[in-house]
Amino acid sequence: MSPPEAGGVLVGVDLGGTQIRAAVATGPGTHGEPVRRRTPAADGPQAVLDAVAAAVRQAAAGAQCLGLAIGIPGPLDPATGVVYDAPHLPGWRGLEAGRLLSERCGCPVVVNNDAKLAAFAEWTRGAGRGTRNFVFVTVSTGVGGGLVLDGELYTGTAGTAGELGHVPASPDGPRCGQGHVGCLEGVASGTAIAERARAAVDAGERSTLRDAKGELDARAVETAALAGDDLANRLFAEAGRALGRAVGGLVNVLSPDVVAVGGGLLGAGDLLFTPLRDALGEIAFAEPLARCRVVPAQLGTDAGLVGATSWALVRLRSVG
Amino acid sequence: MSPPEAGGVLVGVDLGGTQIRAAVATGPGTHGEPVRRRTPAADGPQAVLDAVAAAVRQAAAGAQCLGLAIGIPGPLDPATGVVYDAPHLPGWRGLEAGRLLSERCGCPVVVNNDAKLAAFAEWTRGAGRGTRNFVFVTVSTGVGGGLVLDGELYTGTAGTAGELGHVPASPDGPRCGQGHVGCLEGVASGTAIAERARAAVDAGERSTLRDAKGELDARAVETAALAGDDLANRLFAEAGRALGRAVGGLVNVLSPDVVAVGGGLLGAGDLLFTPLRDALGEIAFAEPLARCRVVPAQLGTDAGLVGATSWALVRLRSVG
Repeated sequence: MSPPEAGGVLVGVDLGGTQIRAAVATGPGTHGEPVRRRTPAADGPQAVLDAVAAAVRQAAAGAQCLGLAIGIPGPLDPATGVVYDAPHLPGWRGLEAGRLLSERCGCPVVVNNDAKLAAFAEWTRGAGRGTRNFVFVTVSTGVGGGLVLDGELYTGTAGTAGELGHVPASPDGPRCGQGHVGCLEGVASGTAIAERARAAVDAGERSTLRDAKGELDARAVETAALAGDDLANRLFAEAGRALGRAVGGLVNVLSPDVVAVGGGLLGAGDLLFTPLRDALGEIAFAEPLARCRVVPAQLGTDAGLVGATSWALVRLRSVG
Repeated sequence: MSPPEAGGVLVGVDLGGTQIRAAVATGPGTHGEPVRRRTPAADGPQAVLDAVAAAVRQAAAGAQCLGLAIGIPGPLDPATGVVYDAPHLPGWRGLEAGRLLSERCGCPVVVNNDAKLAAFAEWTRGAGRGTRNFVFVTVSTGVGGGLVLDGELYTGTAGTAGELGHVPASPDGPRCGQGHVGCLEGVASGTAIAERARAAVDAGERSTLRDAKGELDARAVETAALAGDDLANRLFAEAGRALGRAVGGLVNVLSPDVVAVGGGLLGAGDLLFTPLRDALGEIAFAEPLARCRVVPAQLGTDAGLVGATSWALVRLRSVG
């Protein structure tokens, strides 16, 4: 792979609800030392876009920025650069992020969803390397994902494809944070696990989590599960089973080479992964399952920035 | 589109459990007068393949058959021509159908799953015409389907992608005919509706279906529902809701332009389609749903043969 573009650099940005990270793309799956800035989310979109532009200038370190790829935490249309919504960024509904950033940075800008760029990163340098058909599922506060099909990042007609957390889990299940009835995210996300723990404790169920009630988040449930608490273990088992059934369904629908599962809740490791693996066969056909590896993701929190810089190279190299 | 290949013809075959249909491809989505033969399924694969070869000769009507595409009712690998299994064709597990037919017919043979070729047909000439991303769901004895993504029939790594009936519906749901726990086909297929009706009648539920008990199939439940029977209407409503939730999940995962729903159970029309449509919003995000039309399929039982002849043109034209 060649060094940064002659006469300038391509930059990737991972925009999160609390932090902006920017770095120069140095090759497929590699990037320079990242620049970090706080996301001034509460100050509105103009302030956030200004902070992104400043981070891009700092990352470019005096070189001309020839093009910019940015991952944004919400559904959006990559074709138009318009963000449909970004739950953690107030005021971003319907924002023309691509155009506004291009004006600020004076270069072409491509935008994509952060989870889809993380999927692209895992495909470029992580658990999906060398595959033709790849599914990435990320499980943290919510459940998201991305697809690489026939060797291309697949985003579908509205640009939003790969919303893997919002598939049916149970017709009687709880609503997820987005209001969907009985979908996967309502059972298998960090938010769902914490809510179900609080509800069980409130209902009088015996658990060491009764003491942690004030700060009862998914991390506390994980700690309790590892210490042998029955309620906490049951909640992780149910979440893992729901994830495994959903992944089994994706194996039938898409027959991928690899499904990689990442995200903060996978810090829980076997706690989630063992029931996930065990449930695959409830739904998946033998043949596509035999041709598919279901594995942990490899890049951790770096996936977003690796994805953005790699995407800049793929989509913007010709501007160099 | 040009006429049949100079010096010979391309033939498409729709192989069903009871009938073989063969026709000459005359253009994308069009074919000559079909030849029909009984499928001698019980006599084993060699007899069935002989009957297919005879139907092909008859359809070619003296012209040389330059290539043959066949749709087979079971999971298979289009890349190798090997059938993993075909539930309605005894002895076909692991059968090298492509090679065996090629030997019999003396020409190149491409094989694919019948539901995937029906999807290709609906995309070529039916409800998916002109789209880039298209999902076809067929609901009859079982639930199957096929995908056209980024303008190509998508079959995935094992060749089996598009098994849309085997996605999670409920963790407590019944097993489907393939043994999967709580998948869509266990609730929303003709087989499932008939089984659930029998179980309810056996459990003493009041219904006009008590009288039809001997021949209680999905058609009888449909007739009872149209005549106002509560049990029958509830079963169709539950099946339609499960289908709508599953389609809503596919809208989130794939963001298609169109989802077409066909198959024998759609003869029931609004009985299934109204609850299906109503349930989409339980799961689907607003943006991809606004960009997607969910409509009845258009080609009916001709889809398999239209798909096979169209597929012959796409995959075998170069041999002409």
